[in-house]
Amino acid sequence: MKIIKGGITTAKGFESNGVSSGIKRGGKLDLALITANKPAVSAAVFTKSSIKAAPLIISEKHIKNNKLQAIVVNSGNANCFTGKSGLKTADQTTEIFGKLLNISKEDVFVLSTGIIGKSLSLSKIKNASQKLIKGLAKTNESKTAKAILTTDLTTKEIAVKIKLSGKDVIIGGCAKGSGMIAPNMATMLGFITTDVKISASLLKKSLKEATEQSFNSISIDGCMSTNDTVVLMASAQANNSAIKKGTIEHTKFQNGLNYVCLELAKMIVKDGEGATKFIEIEINGAKTRKQAKDIGLAIANSLLVKTACYGSDPNWGRIAAAIGSLGIKGINESNLKMDFSSFKKKEIKISVSLKLGSASNSVFTCDLSHKYININTQYN
Amino acid sequence: MKIIKGGITTAKGFESNGVSSGIKRGGKLDLALITANKPAVSAAVFTKSSIKAAPLIISEKHIKNNKLQAIVVNSGNANCFTGKSGLKTADQTTEIFGKLLNISKEDVFVLSTGIIGKSLSLSKIKNASQKLIKGLAKTNESKTAKAILTTDLTTKEIAVKIKLSGKDVIIGGCAKGSGMIAPNMATMLGFITTDVKISASLLKKSLKEATEQSFNSISIDGCMSTNDTVVLMASAQANNSAIKKGTIEHTKFQNGLNYVCLELAKMIVKDGEGATKFIEIEINGAKTRKQAKDIGLAIANSLLVKTACYGSDPNWGRIAAAIGSLGIKGINESNLKMDFSSFKKKEIKISVSLKLGSASNSVFTCDLSHKYININTQYN
Repeated sequence: MKIIKGGITTAKGFESNGVSSGIKRGGKLDLALITANKPAVSAAVFTKSSIKAAPLIISEKHIKNNKLQAIVVNSGNANCFTGKSGLKTADQTTEIFGKLLNISKEDVFVLSTGIIGKSLSLSKIKNASQKLIKGLAKTNESKTAKAILTTDLTTKEIAVKIKLSGKDVIIGGCAKGSGMIAPNMATMLGFITTDVKISASLLKKSLKEATEQSFNSISIDGCMSTNDTVVLMASAQANNSAIKKGTIEHTKFQNGLNYVCLELAKMIVKDGEGATKFIEIEINGAKTRKQAKDIGLAIANSLLVKTACYGSDPNWGRIAAAIGSLGIKGINESNLKMDFSSFKKKEIKISVSLKLGSASNSVFTCDLSHKYININTQYN
Repeated sequence: MKIIKGGITTAKGFESNGVSSGIKRGGKLDLALITANKPAVSAAVFTKSSIKAAPLIISEKHIKNNKLQAIVVNSGNANCFTGKSGLKTADQTTEIFGKLLNISKEDVFVLSTGIIGKSLSLSKIKNASQKLIKGLAKTNESKTAKAILTTDLTTKEIAVKIKLSGKDVIIGGCAKGSGMIAPNMATMLGFITTDVKISASLLKKSLKEATEQSFNSISIDGCMSTNDTVVLMASAQANNSAIKKGTIEHTKFQNGLNYVCLELAKMIVKDGEGATKFIEIEINGAKTRKQAKDIGLAIANSLLVKTACYGSDPNWGRIAAAIGSLGIKGINESNLKMDFSSFKKKEIKISVSLKLGSASNSVFTCDLSHKYININTQYN
């Protein structure tokens, strides 16, 4: 696997663009489009929140046949808690782009991120749609990565090249998210494209595994969004022989996809609201991987651990308390080992060894600073 | 029920004292003793943390026969993660006081609160023990309430009088807790005495119910302690006929105990680290009371809701997101009703109505301020 310069359009068969539609003030980029030149085998993972934003409800339907050809995303408005009119706006967005791109509206995926509970203007999207399509190009990936941001301070892009049965295969993508966003909550969104040839069922499985160890293993403030989504399109234009389950090609592809998702997830943590430090929490010796992850997230979400990291104080009593709070039997003073690098550095690693089994997991988080409070109180 | 001036020694049969033993610096009160003039029917509720401090391990054994005559508490050191020597210190503390008070060591309950992982000095406790016992009095309840504090800014005391079968019955107590305490975490501790006559089994049940709706329904920073304990002694000296289950007397006693526990719990929240606002979250129309409580605590523990309260912004999108994050089926935009008082006031009430059933619950929390970050980072 080779890390290469690139992003959402580096894989063969994809173009993208980002424009300003007026949803955000001040002429900021706020509308993005990613297209495949043919219908692409696709998969998506959605928030587990019981309250889902309107575009997710539409997009869940459109991904059912495992096929997409376009993704439309706006930032600045989450189109959540917007009732029937919000659903209509999301649905009509897919219709508008379906018509203009001359593809089925069911092959258009739509996402939104930004303020909750405010009506999203369909006319702004409609007015910007032709300009957005006209500018579709291989070279607009940075504009695309920028148009999906809310309070993020940096764009988040990555691409890798792997060799499968002698052919170069690209996996690339972009993401947004930095905690909860002014003036309301926002979202973690991930977009990935690849030119690999793979079946829909294997792609779905691969994305689930990659998401579990990346986007589902990070926490900034423990808050889950109504709009979280990761979507992946595969164009099959790398000319590899279709990946078969359990083969070395499958492993290589999975490793590449895991890497892309994990790097994007880490970029989100590093851009966490008010974050001054990046914290990796590794749990070893757990009974199951899920248990290791639960313990890691309990530490990651402990305000006391977060503030200890911010204050550069290696306060292991707080780590122990966070572990204990889960009430897991068999964890006690005598069989719990904690280890950590200096809390004074920008990157902190906390390792915890249990004696319950042999499962491991790592999660990633950031510290809790004065700036987080500023960002989330003084946004008006 | 009548609220009266008083605290831990207002009920008949109890004395107490608080002294400085040198565990805390600067001659601060740090060692408290509460005694009954005869063995008292007693009950206790402990932290659900799998990592329990040494004194809790000893005290769990001593409460097994539902009988106590003395409670020793030190502040400034949690005696947690202190290995075998910590257990020995806790055990020997009960032995020292058992001998000096001429009672069985098994009737002595011991608790600690303060820093984790540092050795607790038995000699300091021993050296202060005679002074502590000598000063036992009905009138030292405020000293007692003070000696159990760590970073608390205020003492927390209450007493009520109820009439049961023509007799005056007192329930009174004190508590400590204000989040997690410099330089490590500390604890919520509650001490209650009553002169009611009641069976051990009914007392245990009553304390469990009272704790559930009070100390277990508050959250300051979502962090659970290794030392949390509530303990209740009943001296049976009010001369009421022993309370029978399901009678009007039982209900009256339960209401009184609920009130005492809830008021102490509210005092803890109001003294929450860095708290500038007190927040009540009421959930109605849930399927079960547990579900209502889970939803309330999800809102209470949301950093985004806490910072919205601090910033005086009635950001209901954050409340909705916190509810959604539990992934409970059947909660959606159309059947979720949220209502709240002005976020600008010192006391905020958030009400949520669901349409899942008829169960209700209230939880209590405080906002998250810059001062919380200061307290938990700048304590060295």
